[in-house]
Amino acid sequence: MAAKRRSLFDMVLAVNRSDSTNQQVLQMGVADKAATYSELEDVLPTLKAGDIIVVAVPVCAYQSIFEKIQPYLPRDVAITDVGSTKASVIEAAEAVWGETPSFFVPGHPIAGSERSGVAAANPELFVDRRFILTPTTHTDRDMVDRVRSLWIAVGSVVDEMDSAHHDAVLAATSHLPHVLAYAIVDALVTLEQKTDVFRYAAGGFSDFTRIAESDPVMWRDILLANKTSILDQLDNFETHLADLRGAIERSDGEAIERILERSRDARQLFSQAKLPPQQ
Amino acid sequence: MAAKRRSLFDMVLAVNRSDSTNQQVLQMGVADKAATYSELEDVLPTLKAGDIIVVAVPVCAYQSIFEKIQPYLPRDVAITDVGSTKASVIEAAEAVWGETPSFFVPGHPIAGSERSGVAAANPELFVDRRFILTPTTHTDRDMVDRVRSLWIAVGSVVDEMDSAHHDAVLAATSHLPHVLAYAIVDALVTLEQKTDVFRYAAGGFSDFTRIAESDPVMWRDILLANKTSILDQLDNFETHLADLRGAIERSDGEAIERILERSRDARQLFSQAKLPPQQ
Repeated sequence: MAAKRRSLFDMVLAVNRSDSTNQQVLQMGVADKAATYSELEDVLPTLKAGDIIVVAVPVCAYQSIFEKIQPYLPRDVAITDVGSTKASVIEAAEAVWGETPSFFVPGHPIAGSERSGVAAANPELFVDRRFILTPTTHTDRDMVDRVRSLWIAVGSVVDEMDSAHHDAVLAATSHLPHVLAYAIVDALVTLEQKTDVFRYAAGGFSDFTRIAESDPVMWRDILLANKTSILDQLDNFETHLADLRGAIERSDGEAIERILERSRDARQLFSQAKLPPQQ
Repeated sequence: MAAKRRSLFDMVLAVNRSDSTNQQVLQMGVADKAATYSELEDVLPTLKAGDIIVVAVPVCAYQSIFEKIQPYLPRDVAITDVGSTKASVIEAAEAVWGETPSFFVPGHPIAGSERSGVAAANPELFVDRRFILTPTTHTDRDMVDRVRSLWIAVGSVVDEMDSAHHDAVLAATSHLPHVLAYAIVDALVTLEQKTDVFRYAAGGFSDFTRIAESDPVMWRDILLANKTSILDQLDNFETHLADLRGAIERSDGEAIERILERSRDARQLFSQAKLPPQQ
């Protein structure tokens, strides 16, 4: 939708599982044309040199999509993705093509919300947000540049890093917070005072738990695919939580205040370090 | 400021620690007059029957403020508070007056933000938000009605409950999320990838950790004053986190999805159960 609104291509083609999704796609002006997976053998050969395929599915589904694409992929068409874990998607490509194919450019937009599906489409979603590319040594640099241009054109600031670093950083900033948000809502639902808990929750609670509305299948896959990094981040979090809990148990006001101040100061630095508009 | 803008009283008097705060108070139109604690013996006798004193300090400071007020308090003046823990503030009043005095109406507005100080004053903060009163058996019902009228007049929906129930519910909806937000920011700051962690954090992370910017002294006091309920909620949270962590460790996709779905559904119910505008 972001590419279509900016007329970046002669045609934007959406491929989805169901006809009903495709009807919504066309109605909302998300794409120019739409097809289902069963029509891939017809639509893929119509792609032209210089085109880009953007695969956007839960991270454990990439391999099966790559398998569907592989037999019909024309020459000089780039494939990129938007998966929240990068090592696992690269492995999926390697499982289908033997090694990371030169035309596959792994990527991840640091943008999104707890909403999912076509109805949540937003052509301005990527403006002034970061996009991370994690090409491998096998990735063709021209293909990297082509994919980079697409994300710059929809408004993003594009960086490159290796997939392991990406997965470690995202485990900390995105995957761990989701695990905690899901766990806290799950914990509160079991309380006797459940009704009052929801009635008397204020804005802080609302913001804190909003990400627990994210799609369960998408997040199940992320937790499976980035397991090692996420468990590392959970270990680190649990150590720090135990410190704060210990200070509360001991009624150690000085230790509590020290932890809260350190955290407040770091969070304020984060607020101030917001991404500047792209130059 | 909310009372002044609505002309609920002939005069709104602010009492603060410092002259510089009071200058800001008068400049921003938060109150009509301002005094410091050392002037309490002069200003308290000017209060009239029917007036209300609203004490708003970190919860462990209530006793020392009550001690300052006690010698100069005129007859038929109500005292209320806005402390985030209620049992501890009631204990502070009992420590000063022997039993909960009839003119003390414990209260808590379920409103606020991570910002603090006079600069964060917002006369619309309480509109359509809940306010909880926790009177004791010693509290005069006329005093309760007087304080209730104040909060209704500034836009809140007022409920009553006992202080123990309040403290248990708030431990779940407010105190536990703050503990987790402070702990996660504290955990991330220690990471090697700290710079990238902040650079690549997106909106979800920002909302999730925003409350860690809250005032450390205010929150130190809440964690000290509501320790037992908070530790109970931490126990419950840690049990549910261990369930989700176990499912991740076992790569048990079905169990992960079940927890995520349950949590997503509960969070959606919460979004839909938003407080209706006051009738």
